[in-house]
Amino acid sequence: MRHFLTTEDWTREELQALLDAARVFRADPFSDALARRSLAFVFFNPSMRTRSSFQVGAHQLGGHSVVLEPGGSSWPIEARDGVVMDGDAEEHAREVVPILSRYFDMIGVRSFPKFKIWSDDLTDPVLSAFAKYASVPVINMETIVHPCQELAMMMALQDRIGETDGRKFTLSWVPHPRPLNTAVANSALLMAAKFGFDVTIAVPDEAYRLDERFMSAAQESAAANGRSITMTTDLDAAYDGANVVYAKSWGAIPYFGRWDEEAALREKAGAARFMIDEEKMARTDNGVVSHCLPMRRNVKIADAVADSDRFLGVAEAENRLHVQKAVMARLAVEARS
Amino acid sequence: MRHFLTTEDWTREELQALLDAARVFRADPFSDALARRSLAFVFFNPSMRTRSSFQVGAHQLGGHSVVLEPGGSSWPIEARDGVVMDGDAEEHAREVVPILSRYFDMIGVRSFPKFKIWSDDLTDPVLSAFAKYASVPVINMETIVHPCQELAMMMALQDRIGETDGRKFTLSWVPHPRPLNTAVANSALLMAAKFGFDVTIAVPDEAYRLDERFMSAAQESAAANGRSITMTTDLDAAYDGANVVYAKSWGAIPYFGRWDEEAALREKAGAARFMIDEEKMARTDNGVVSHCLPMRRNVKIADAVADSDRFLGVAEAENRLHVQKAVMARLAVEARS
Amino acid sequence: MRHFLTTEDWTREELQALLDAARVFRADPFSDALARRSLAFVFFNPSMRTRSSFQVGAHQLGGHSVVLEPGGSSWPIEARDGVVMDGDAEEHAREVVPILSRYFDMIGVRSFPKFKIWSDDLTDPVLSAFAKYASVPVINMETIVHPCQELAMMMALQDRIGETDGRKFTLSWVPHPRPLNTAVANSALLMAAKFGFDVTIAVPDEAYRLDERFMSAAQESAAANGRSITMTTDLDAAYDGANVVYAKSWGAIPYFGRWDEEAALREKAGAARFMIDEEKMARTDNGVVSHCLPMRRNVKIADAVADSDRFLGVAEAENRLHVQKAVMARLAVEARS
Repeated sequence: MRHFLTTEDWTREELQALLDAARVFRADPFSDALARRSLAFVFFNPSMRTRSSFQVGAHQLGGHSVVLEPGGSSWPIEARDGVVMDGDAEEHAREVVPILSRYFDMIGVRSFPKFKIWSDDLTDPVLSAFAKYASVPVINMETIVHPCQELAMMMALQDRIGETDGRKFTLSWVPHPRPLNTAVANSALLMAAKFGFDVTIAVPDEAYRLDERFMSAAQESAAANGRSITMTTDLDAAYDGANVVYAKSWGAIPYFGRWDEEAALREKAGAARFMIDEEKMARTDNGVVSHCLPMRRNVKIADAVADSDRFLGVAEAENRLHVQKAVMARLAVEARS
Repeated sequence: MRHFLTTEDWTREELQALLDAARVFRADPFSDALARRSLAFVFFNPSMRTRSSFQVGAHQLGGHSVVLEPGGSSWPIEARDGVVMDGDAEEHAREVVPILSRYFDMIGVRSFPKFKIWSDDLTDPVLSAFAKYASVPVINMETIVHPCQELAMMMALQDRIGETDGRKFTLSWVPHPRPLNTAVANSALLMAAKFGFDVTIAVPDEAYRLDERFMSAAQESAAANGRSITMTTDLDAAYDGANVVYAKSWGAIPYFGRWDEEAALREKAGAARFMIDEEKMARTDNGVVSHCLPMRRNVKIADAVADSDRFLGVAEAENRLHVQKAVMARLAVEARS
Repeated sequence: MRHFLTTEDWTREELQALLDAARVFRADPFSDALARRSLAFVFFNPSMRTRSSFQVGAHQLGGHSVVLEPGGSSWPIEARDGVVMDGDAEEHAREVVPILSRYFDMIGVRSFPKFKIWSDDLTDPVLSAFAKYASVPVINMETIVHPCQELAMMMALQDRIGETDGRKFTLSWVPHPRPLNTAVANSALLMAAKFGFDVTIAVPDEAYRLDERFMSAAQESAAANGRSITMTTDLDAAYDGANVVYAKSWGAIPYFGRWDEEAALREKAGAARFMIDEEKMARTDNGVVSHCLPMRRNVKIADAVADSDRFLGVAEAENRLHVQKAVMARLAVEARS
């Protein structure tokens, strides 16, 4: 049995096999890969696209899904051993996860970081508890990484630009009124590095460096592929010759819990100039642009870019359906063997 | 491809064909009209009957439905073009609706008026954005009109009184502790006029006149049918000889945003006397009574009327299931062709 | 047609037949017992296990389920006759329940006590209204009793200890930071007595006596079986020779609405010593322990007990799926005949 928690646990070849399977599902959507199987999709955070694509996908594979929304941004479940549970937590993962494993054949979990203390978020406590106590496959529907989004992005990129090895992938920080979590940024970095891109991370300040866990994993992939990971505050250098620009906004990790100071840093660093526009795109090598959704137009990406043929965001979102079907079908096969 | 947004877009003959199909589904509930189709039912407002009847109906036609509840009474989606999205809206209809169109084969939308500024409500912004950007059929599950309720009402009336042409339909304002939106009043007016009734609207004051869009559409239908639309504050005249009394409470449009003043107007106009009771019904021509639900007993309609054989409210609610199946099946056929 | 509201309405033989059917479903999960049937599961209170097990169970029997969550801990529905509905309630059970009966073939209801005035809670107003006005079978998914949990408990006990007649069942009050409702305590008492156990209720104070409705029903069962119901504050006596210890926390009925005083009573009565631990279990006759979930570890039950082979809580939770399928299948047969 195998979980799908992060692409760090899967080889490039395994991930490519998932992408190939996703293309088969795009051409021929229905199968009985999940026949007589029930799946729980547990959302600790709201969702429209993820919920839609997982529910439709499970149904098209013959499965039956139940959506559970424990509510609130955190879940009063205890995951530590030996604790006297006289606080908020009404129950322990040691009971709730095994029981869900008896009702369901697969469990998807969305649990965003609490966004207060990064060292806590980095332990991915809810997903880790599910992975530890589940006796059925667990799928990450976005926590501190978003591996299903990674697959959807890579499917859109391969569809459009073909070979990815040695091409230039620019992960560009973009503006947003609030600091956001780093999940999709971590994921874009991991996936681009694994698939042989040279990766440039464009940020308004060194403080926007992603966590070492993801930086070093990406560097390891890059080294294996003979490629590089670069971080820069120079937008011209970042865009020059890029084949892909991937947009994402995120909060600076050293400023966790001090977001007022981070806002001042953005101001000082001139963060607003990071919006993706036609002028920047003109420096690229006929580059494409993508973004996970939702996306604020004319804040993150200018209309002229978002409405152009360069923009892959809608195709990427559609791919969520196809790649997640590939993941569910694969995990079902692994659980059966 | 065709949407089902308002009965204004459908001819009487087309609506009658939907009613005929609904009767076939009542007799024989199961079909494969939606086989291998997924439907999204998007509720920006809570629902029990609409949600139940759409989900059960889609399933009985072989379809798979997903309920999405973006939450709150408004949805932070931007529908205007060219806006710098640095406010509340996290995403634009230009992304979210096309993506739902890729996951789903049909989309139902419930989005009540915000009830602050009538000129804003009258643009029906959320439904309009779905209709504009969707590449699959969109169904109105209640916005500023409620066309599925119209069909359910007409099915119940035809079942009971047969021919509708030249019969008298009294749309009576009824009391309620709070001002309510005009959707079902607009709809009852449109549908009764389209099906050849002479329509009398009974209101406590001229300020309760419905919006000109609906008044003039109804007058146009009435003219085509050789019938009339009348508004009166005279309850005796309204009930005399009525074949149908349709009850609905709504807020006076000129008082939008000044509901305290509207409450004073109600008081002054003696609005409480508009409750439907046996004495009033005795003036009718053996008239029937209906109401969309929920319904406050002994405020809107007296128990003696609600518990009598005259009352069609429960039959009308049941019909929601049948007519919505007719609508979904019809839109699926139109989308296929 | 028959409802499943409380085990008080079902004979031991009938309940045993449900347990036997549950074991068949455990061995062979799929059937068409609910084919072409739609079921509404109406949750006035949140749920994860109940919702999961009912939805999965209905699907495995070929049925289609819709979850309705009217929201809030109470439902603004009027159940009394003849009332002028100018308060909070927007609709009357006389409309809403018949309409759900037209859409659905079976209705499950969860509606917890309001926990303010016990005499109100004891009328079980929401469930009673559903049972009164529904024309399809109604299932209690937990109100002031929890009959599905009773069946799940008894299935786990029979699986482990075999014969129940003449064995000792100790229903032990256990600590919890807040006063909880008595539903599962009432249910454990009813079911243990009906199945021939000698029942000992261990409480920190006489004030924790359960309501006379349940005490006298249990005493009647015990008399019919030649057994006894005993209440004690002596923990040693309660555990000595017990074959089963069933843990539940509940608030003292005479203190309803005065929970501060109840907290003082707990303190004075040394309630904390009621946690189930190895020392207490050593007094039993190799006894097993169970508990409905959620369960606070090291507050209600010590880790050493919860992690031992004695603990049946997870098996009991799994059984919810099997017994509820037996209930739904049985009610479907009764409704058909």
